[in-house]
Amino acid sequence: MRMYDIIAKKKHGEKLTDEEFDFFINGYINDEIPEYQVSALLMAIYFQGLSREETVALTHKVMHSGDVIDLSDIEGIKVDKHSSGGVGDTTTLVLAPLVSSCGVPVAKMSGRGLGHTGGTLDKLEAIEGFNIHLKIDEFVNQVNKNKVSVIGQTKNIAPADKKLYALRDVTATVDNIGLIAASIMSKKLAAGSDKIVLDVKVGSGAFVKELDGAIELAQEMVNIGTDMGRETVAIITSMEQPLGYAIGNANEVREAIDVLKGQGPDDLRDLCVKFASTMVHLGGGADSFEAAKEMVLENLSNGKALEKMVEFVTAQGGNKENILNPDTLPTSDIVREIKADKTGYIKAIQSDDIGIAAMILGAGRETMDDVLDMGAGIYFNKKIGDYVEAGEVLGTLMTNKAEKIDEAIQMTLDALEYSETEVAKSQLIKAKVTCDGVEKY
Amino acid sequence: MRMYDIIAKKKHGEKLTDEEFDFFINGYINDEIPEYQVSALLMAIYFQGLSREETVALTHKVMHSGDVIDLSDIEGIKVDKHSSGGVGDTTTLVLAPLVSSCGVPVAKMSGRGLGHTGGTLDKLEAIEGFNIHLKIDEFVNQVNKNKVSVIGQTKNIAPADKKLYALRDVTATVDNIGLIAASIMSKKLAAGSDKIVLDVKVGSGAFVKELDGAIELAQEMVNIGTDMGRETVAIITSMEQPLGYAIGNANEVREAIDVLKGQGPDDLRDLCVKFASTMVHLGGGADSFEAAKEMVLENLSNGKALEKMVEFVTAQGGNKENILNPDTLPTSDIVREIKADKTGYIKAIQSDDIGIAAMILGAGRETMDDVLDMGAGIYFNKKIGDYVEAGEVLGTLMTNKAEKIDEAIQMTLDALEYSETEVAKSQLIKAKVTCDGVEKY
Repeated sequence: MRMYDIIAKKKHGEKLTDEEFDFFINGYINDEIPEYQVSALLMAIYFQGLSREETVALTHKVMHSGDVIDLSDIEGIKVDKHSSGGVGDTTTLVLAPLVSSCGVPVAKMSGRGLGHTGGTLDKLEAIEGFNIHLKIDEFVNQVNKNKVSVIGQTKNIAPADKKLYALRDVTATVDNIGLIAASIMSKKLAAGSDKIVLDVKVGSGAFVKELDGAIELAQEMVNIGTDMGRETVAIITSMEQPLGYAIGNANEVREAIDVLKGQGPDDLRDLCVKFASTMVHLGGGADSFEAAKEMVLENLSNGKALEKMVEFVTAQGGNKENILNPDTLPTSDIVREIKADKTGYIKAIQSDDIGIAAMILGAGRETMDDVLDMGAGIYFNKKIGDYVEAGEVLGTLMTNKAEKIDEAIQMTLDALEYSETEVAKSQLIKAKVTCDGVEKY
Repeated sequence: MRMYDIIAKKKHGEKLTDEEFDFFINGYINDEIPEYQVSALLMAIYFQGLSREETVALTHKVMHSGDVIDLSDIEGIKVDKHSSGGVGDTTTLVLAPLVSSCGVPVAKMSGRGLGHTGGTLDKLEAIEGFNIHLKIDEFVNQVNKNKVSVIGQTKNIAPADKKLYALRDVTATVDNIGLIAASIMSKKLAAGSDKIVLDVKVGSGAFVKELDGAIELAQEMVNIGTDMGRETVAIITSMEQPLGYAIGNANEVREAIDVLKGQGPDDLRDLCVKFASTMVHLGGGADSFEAAKEMVLENLSNGKALEKMVEFVTAQGGNKENILNPDTLPTSDIVREIKADKTGYIKAIQSDDIGIAAMILGAGRETMDDVLDMGAGIYFNKKIGDYVEAGEVLGTLMTNKAEKIDEAIQMTLDALEYSETEVAKSQLIKAKVTCDGVEKY
């Protein structure tokens, strides 16, 4: 078998076989196939696409290029959740205790963040003493005992995906639905859960701008999960503006605690209820989505979700005082109000720019060596459709870097677009995709 | 400027600018742009194509990536000829003295061969003492004095083309009309002649299988020449079977001498007359193609073409006895007849396979380090449409490698396809393409 023939075959629009994907991924991982042949194949795939069978075959090879986690010692149905991320995406901090409080085990591996704010791991480390470095058997024991644990991802999950993604990133071959779906699903499948719920973002702040494209991507991923025997549900949600109000590590922990108390911003709470209910239903905690939702709402109002958060944090060495009294979470020395420089209805928000403003204040990493300032960040209290008067307070920033304040404020103000006439509020949850079809809301 | 953006632009079907081609070719030559980005761009070009302006811009950059030869010290209009090559293509050996005998200067740089037989340089070296290593000023003087010289190509003609071609060859990106045209024309334009005649091969033994594809390729090249101020004419000729009878270095010199005497195989002679007449006309040696053709035919029959061959060979240090008495050219020790194993009309000939049979007998190089056996080769005397009886002599082989004879005979016989019913002779010269349009014959 020769890589040349595999490239030529795909270039001419033919389907690649299981054996060809095996040869390609193995050869690439072992440095036997040069990157210039791989990038030529990736570009040919961009133009010719991958069939459902090919996408599954590629996902399977990439998934097995490294460790595949065995969670079979955990009792019950393990449901994992994946989000394409975004500014202020605090959902895992809410979902882990919330789903667990409904009796469904949550065994989650998370990553650190690069860019606007930290990843879930970074946010958890804003809690004093929280230990994300459990061994797999400790992790399994923890989930069996408390029904919830979140730890750092092992380095060797889908190494072929890391290598392929780095190459796609510099050869303009990221934006192919099959390659994106295989990349996400190979990692999720290697993480070992029984069922998967995907949060597919759509809109100006997301990779996919239009609903049709998001549905197509969701279907690809649901197909892969289905074909590999892991029930997968995708929920398509809007990414037109930051989720919730809080951006920054301690800020987002505080906001998650608010939601677990049944409070917090409407959009973040609605999203968490939708995902938690879906996960509880899939995980067998309730017979229907409606019954699951009832249980979820109940646990948000009766204190059980927050109780589970305290139990979860304590079990992993974290200081429960940080949860019971969020004022004890890290803060930054300087707090400054952000005031509007214009009057009008907010028409659009460049979420990424507000995320970058939070980053330069210390909330995110520009390079993997940067040290996070856990207390730094932004509370941005306005949403699309809100009417704002020039001089009105839009939010607050926290930082220890006085020299960055002016730049961060300017970036935040520049991220806003105004309209003189009223603007409709945008719908947060757009559609659900399962192996049975698409349901638009 | 970033290579990433250039790839993305072409991927989305946009046109690249002069500056972008400059950045790409310069960066690639200087190892500042990695091969994995170049191969991604090449694959994007395969799918999105190049416009006429883009092809010219690419050709210009590749041409100027190395030496550009200045032939302005040679009096008269210099006409160069390029052939996509093929088995038994002896035309340069005939055309150089023939065109020169009509008063039009021939200043030609040629290459060595890899594969079935040697290149023009190798064939010339079958002549005892022939020196292909002239300096540029000696070369110019020679052409001014004798109206003809053929020397080895300098190493630094279009180095970007060498690097690009090697990459295309392993990434399945050779077969794009724009890239092929730019590759050929960049080298021809750097070689410094005023006008160019192209022999574009079509058919089973050529890169382009169909006449339409050959016309398209020819038009691309004519357009490049036109846009860069060098009149270019392309003649499309059939490559369904070896040209002439002789394959091998000394064999092809003998056959060229036959043609220069007005004899030799019909197909080789017809082709040489067509190209020589076109070159003489373009070079100002005659007012019309018809007048040029009359002069060419005259010089083949009155001995002037052969006389010029003797003069040309002598001027470059070659032994004129080899020309006057071709029996003095190198021979091999073993001569063996090749007899038909079947009866019928010859329907198809896999030229490449007969070429490879000649190569293993010693006529060609498998690697650039192989030493040629100048006397080795094959005379294959049959053409498509000929009726053959099993046991009849199809040709002769010459070699010093007794152990290769059986294999070479078997390869030659296996290269033939027979029909029980009569087969039409194939037409050799198919079409002419100029900046004014296409003329089919």
